[in-house]
Amino acid sequence: MVGGGIGAFIGAIHRIALAMDGQYELTAGVFSTDESKSKETGKQLFLDPKRVYTTYQSMLEAESALSEDVRIDVVVIVTPNHLHFDPAIQALEKGFHVILEKPITFSLAEAKLLHQKRLVTGKQLLLCHTYTGYPMVKQAKQLVSEGLIGAIRKIYVEYPQGWLSTFLETSKHKQADWRTDPTKSGLAGAMGDIGTHAFNLAEYITGLQVVRLCAAVNTVVEGRKLDDDGAALLTFNNGASGVLISTQVAAGAENNISIRVYGEKGGISWCQENNNSLVIQWPDRPAETWRAGSSYLGSYAAHNTRTPAGHPEGYLEAFANLYRNFALCLRAAHNGETPKQEWLDYPSTLEGIRGMAFIESVIQSSKQQQWIDFVQ
Amino acid sequence: MVGGGIGAFIGAIHRIALAMDGQYELTAGVFSTDESKSKETGKQLFLDPKRVYTTYQSMLEAESALSEDVRIDVVVIVTPNHLHFDPAIQALEKGFHVILEKPITFSLAEAKLLHQKRLVTGKQLLLCHTYTGYPMVKQAKQLVSEGLIGAIRKIYVEYPQGWLSTFLETSKHKQADWRTDPTKSGLAGAMGDIGTHAFNLAEYITGLQVVRLCAAVNTVVEGRKLDDDGAALLTFNNGASGVLISTQVAAGAENNISIRVYGEKGGISWCQENNNSLVIQWPDRPAETWRAGSSYLGSYAAHNTRTPAGHPEGYLEAFANLYRNFALCLRAAHNGETPKQEWLDYPSTLEGIRGMAFIESVIQSSKQQQWIDFVQ
Amino acid sequence: MVGGGIGAFIGAIHRIALAMDGQYELTAGVFSTDESKSKETGKQLFLDPKRVYTTYQSMLEAESALSEDVRIDVVVIVTPNHLHFDPAIQALEKGFHVILEKPITFSLAEAKLLHQKRLVTGKQLLLCHTYTGYPMVKQAKQLVSEGLIGAIRKIYVEYPQGWLSTFLETSKHKQADWRTDPTKSGLAGAMGDIGTHAFNLAEYITGLQVVRLCAAVNTVVEGRKLDDDGAALLTFNNGASGVLISTQVAAGAENNISIRVYGEKGGISWCQENNNSLVIQWPDRPAETWRAGSSYLGSYAAHNTRTPAGHPEGYLEAFANLYRNFALCLRAAHNGETPKQEWLDYPSTLEGIRGMAFIESVIQSSKQQQWIDFVQ
Amino acid sequence: MVGGGIGAFIGAIHRIALAMDGQYELTAGVFSTDESKSKETGKQLFLDPKRVYTTYQSMLEAESALSEDVRIDVVVIVTPNHLHFDPAIQALEKGFHVILEKPITFSLAEAKLLHQKRLVTGKQLLLCHTYTGYPMVKQAKQLVSEGLIGAIRKIYVEYPQGWLSTFLETSKHKQADWRTDPTKSGLAGAMGDIGTHAFNLAEYITGLQVVRLCAAVNTVVEGRKLDDDGAALLTFNNGASGVLISTQVAAGAENNISIRVYGEKGGISWCQENNNSLVIQWPDRPAETWRAGSSYLGSYAAHNTRTPAGHPEGYLEAFANLYRNFALCLRAAHNGETPKQEWLDYPSTLEGIRGMAFIESVIQSSKQQQWIDFVQ
Repeated sequence: MVGGGIGAFIGAIHRIALAMDGQYELTAGVFSTDESKSKETGKQLFLDPKRVYTTYQSMLEAESALSEDVRIDVVVIVTPNHLHFDPAIQALEKGFHVILEKPITFSLAEAKLLHQKRLVTGKQLLLCHTYTGYPMVKQAKQLVSEGLIGAIRKIYVEYPQGWLSTFLETSKHKQADWRTDPTKSGLAGAMGDIGTHAFNLAEYITGLQVVRLCAAVNTVVEGRKLDDDGAALLTFNNGASGVLISTQVAAGAENNISIRVYGEKGGISWCQENNNSLVIQWPDRPAETWRAGSSYLGSYAAHNTRTPAGHPEGYLEAFANLYRNFALCLRAAHNGETPKQEWLDYPSTLEGIRGMAFIESVIQSSKQQQWIDFVQ
Repeated sequence: MVGGGIGAFIGAIHRIALAMDGQYELTAGVFSTDESKSKETGKQLFLDPKRVYTTYQSMLEAESALSEDVRIDVVVIVTPNHLHFDPAIQALEKGFHVILEKPITFSLAEAKLLHQKRLVTGKQLLLCHTYTGYPMVKQAKQLVSEGLIGAIRKIYVEYPQGWLSTFLETSKHKQADWRTDPTKSGLAGAMGDIGTHAFNLAEYITGLQVVRLCAAVNTVVEGRKLDDDGAALLTFNNGASGVLISTQVAAGAENNISIRVYGEKGGISWCQENNNSLVIQWPDRPAETWRAGSSYLGSYAAHNTRTPAGHPEGYLEAFANLYRNFALCLRAAHNGETPKQEWLDYPSTLEGIRGMAFIESVIQSSKQQQWIDFVQ
Repeated sequence: MVGGGIGAFIGAIHRIALAMDGQYELTAGVFSTDESKSKETGKQLFLDPKRVYTTYQSMLEAESALSEDVRIDVVVIVTPNHLHFDPAIQALEKGFHVILEKPITFSLAEAKLLHQKRLVTGKQLLLCHTYTGYPMVKQAKQLVSEGLIGAIRKIYVEYPQGWLSTFLETSKHKQADWRTDPTKSGLAGAMGDIGTHAFNLAEYITGLQVVRLCAAVNTVVEGRKLDDDGAALLTFNNGASGVLISTQVAAGAENNISIRVYGEKGGISWCQENNNSLVIQWPDRPAETWRAGSSYLGSYAAHNTRTPAGHPEGYLEAFANLYRNFALCLRAAHNGETPKQEWLDYPSTLEGIRGMAFIESVIQSSKQQQWIDFVQ
Repeated sequence: MVGGGIGAFIGAIHRIALAMDGQYELTAGVFSTDESKSKETGKQLFLDPKRVYTTYQSMLEAESALSEDVRIDVVVIVTPNHLHFDPAIQALEKGFHVILEKPITFSLAEAKLLHQKRLVTGKQLLLCHTYTGYPMVKQAKQLVSEGLIGAIRKIYVEYPQGWLSTFLETSKHKQADWRTDPTKSGLAGAMGDIGTHAFNLAEYITGLQVVRLCAAVNTVVEGRKLDDDGAALLTFNNGASGVLISTQVAAGAENNISIRVYGEKGGISWCQENNNSLVIQWPDRPAETWRAGSSYLGSYAAHNTRTPAGHPEGYLEAFANLYRNFALCLRAAHNGETPKQEWLDYPSTLEGIRGMAFIESVIQSSKQQQWIDFVQ
């Protein structure tokens, strides 16, 4: 693991996700650029002190020198955005698979290079668009792809947060600090941090791609260096239209990412706050609530669920689903077996490129205050 | 009453709204251009056949000739949009007050003329933006105006319907027929029919005004003559931004008009589906659910509620609130008394002008595919 | 109207219910035992002062002396429980139909006498078990009777309120005053006031009858003279079992009367707080949410709805449904026509007898602290 | 681990719960009485084959002979009810701590013996009443104990399931098979399996104890050997009353265990389906929704949460909370440190005794069809 020292939010989440299903064991790491903090983190995680490193370069070097049954198989990178590309590239080059927080890189150009590197090395990369790990999101995708609601016409997707409603940057708030810093976060703030999740969710469930958009991003809180709010009108490649909302200044909002997709025959909606339900509305018969863990679900939802209907799973299980599917694919490849379709359903570099293109498109459209073709 | 013959949707709603609180009595009408249908409607409503007329001109003529204690006081106009302006103007001229379905007229120019006529004649006009009659919408307005959530930053408002998901126009569907006909409905379809409601709700609750917008309207169902879908990015006069969604092709959607307003301190949300609740979210303390009929509500909500908390009121009561407030104001004026602030809180020609300007702005922006200043 | 002077809760509700659909006109009344208050009420309701009476005896006398086209047709009785029986009996005897608040009378014996009087006089009586007027309650009854969820096994019904959590009796609270006074309310407090509604709702939807019960009623608030809380285990005549909860000391609870009925094949649930929805759960397919105003509903729900799906109706419309159906039946009888089954679906004296027997059963079981056969 | 072979429900859940927070490592087990199945399970779990045993006796024997840094510390017992007591007793005797599925034993007498054994050996025992591991359940307990809603008056608790609505026993359904078999499950079916959870939840949150009850249990599905349904009226030791519902024949119901507690000042409610929210209702101000992961929560909820508000945690995290707290206490004891109050908050043998006494009380009351004092 690269990053994720004591007090980091997403590093702890990754550790739970990897441990949950007994598919991974955390054995080495460089958890912080602060050596003593890295060591202390390793100690708390019961790691062998010799495998707690000072730099990711030294970790990759040392680990690749170990015998195959001892050395790490996968490098998990949970650093701020500007520190994704280099360790990822180097890990792939050294022969390790990579698990990477989103957005994939600092820029679209880097994302494309990383994609190429993945193809060239033949190593695999998991990009953590967590929300696509929810069983009912997978069910939505499966139902849409099977034509249940007909050709898609409208897509509304949103990710409202409120935690940046005030100027936290001055208050030694680690999360706020780097996420609002353009040298660490990239071109976009809210649009990069959570807008990309909303964008990915929309493309994942519908199987469509945005081809044009008109965005307006704002920096609402005085003194902030990056956007903390925005919205975009969207056109998809089948002619459907949509609206994407992403904000971090909706004071009081938590993390209720949600999506509604309407087709010719009906509409399907999902939100994180009620993640174990999928609601399908019909013009001429009662709305249906499909529930995680139920006997009638498709193979994707079923595979990605651990508990019977009514025993709620949540964000950590969605995260763990990405991890488990990635592990199942790696193990299958290692054993020369064919992975199941349900295992292969995890985001990787292509989704990363789409996400970076989304960020660049949104920022460009907003600056020009006009509709633009989606950046390729 | 002008319009509202047997089978008409909104006419029957108006009759319930006027009767509910015992403030009006329906005594005369021209319910249809089809004379026999008009007569049959009058009969079903237990009206004196002599006061069931053939044209609104003849009704206004005849009624104004009756003695003051017999003749009608108020003319209710529930015809399609293109037939709002003329009967309204004539009614005002003949000395009657007017209750008018929205949108106020067929064009912005007409709306301005009607406004002038109201001022000149000194008669009053109620424009039926029903959703502002809900007690918890009024509570939201009151709380926002008192500064509870601080300066407004974000406004999300939407009105999704699904009933025009298919081409109903061929199937002798009266509602679909005129609402999708540009010679009867006006410049806009969905944006005029329900987008104006969403727009009005946003301006009503926040007390702000849209000053710029970028809209995209679509005709999704093949063969349709007017837009059946659209969305707009908004800028308000205090610098706040917003998103407005209005569609009639969200298959399976009913009438869940909803709004979320975020200020510096918190967020407030309301939707028609759960109309007796108002949810206020805070960054640092539990969300609150304010409930219609409760003891702690402000004077506006309290005045516009008939039942104790938990005995749900709904759409018809919201409608009746407009009617009742209008009646209370007319009676106060008649008696030379000062109406209460809570009674005066009903939409009239100024809201009508804003609505028509919204329609023209949205259509213009969408055609030009760019941001425009709000049409005045 | 007998009772319902200024400030009375339920009288005002009845006036809205009767006015809403244009089927009744309020023309006479004795609104209070206080003559000046009765007169003032009549004045506010725009009544002819000559038809505002001092006693119900004088009203019945005077009205029956008027010509048929002038005199009242129906007497609405909205007095406290101990003043139901006598005006109702006298009204029937004088040839008037009766609309009566629940519980029907002060005692079971009176209820039986009133039932006999109704049969003998051939006049009709509407007992206002309002909750059976909700369209989705009627839909539930229809679906259950059609066997949709199979033979009934479990019935959970509850009516939790919180308004009597403190000793309001001392604070000149009119509602609290008589409802907690055994000389006005009868044998039971909460069980009579709202337990009877829950009981009626259960028997109405399922078509079953309670045959045994074991109840425990409590007086929670010190100094109160009647029960303010209770629960009962129930056995129904088909062998199904159930639980009934009724309380007025659930501090913070409003009026969310709710019911869940489980059969061999599935379960159906409804609650007042979400009165326009009916949820049906299945073991092997998604739950369904049936919505008032939808095209797929049965004839009972359709007949008792005024607005399209998504425009919420509520308590007042449920109340008005009772009134409208009663009026349609009376008019049909008057015209020698056969009323529709949907119109005849209103509660009357038989339901009143069941309710009074419930009160007596519950109190007896609770005193004896044991299971008893339902009192007949 | 004892039990939990391939295909077992609760064993897999325990393995996730123990792994999630990196506090335990599964190193040995006897997963089935079928040796080959036990071995296969061990293999799938990447265990050392030498530590996959044939009987729990041999496991305890062999493990206790290993050196302290190698041998297991804790024995997890996830067998059917009749196989709880003996392995638990033996594990304690051999010096291992024990984690045990509920109900604690087959009979009340066994529960008392196990409690004594725990005290005598000084070893610790965790009883998996999972629902008390939810952060918002802990928040409820904390708020109630702090007097937020005043003295408790009413407690409504229920656990409705539907999965035993048909006679699954014939269909080789492993879960149904042993749970409906009195030789494996004990005196009670539904009341033991899930009624005990509801009972425990009520006593946990309120800090009160049931002192009297009147229960009715039923065997609804023909041919079943144990109760599959029941309800009980309750009296608590402070005079409060309550109702407990437990059923496995509510066709379509999932696992929505829920509780409502009303005090003199307000009411608090929680349900598993919306487990990250806690609703507090007040008579005189808006209802509040307290949310897991929020900054304003108490120390118990905060300690038992991993994600920020709005990223839902669920059943597996609640389960893992029990495991983590138990581990923290064991480690503190091992290090000679004082465990925090929040860590000590896990169910053990005393809760087990209460649960078994509940089962015996309910069955006795139901047989006698009368109120009884709670069995001690």
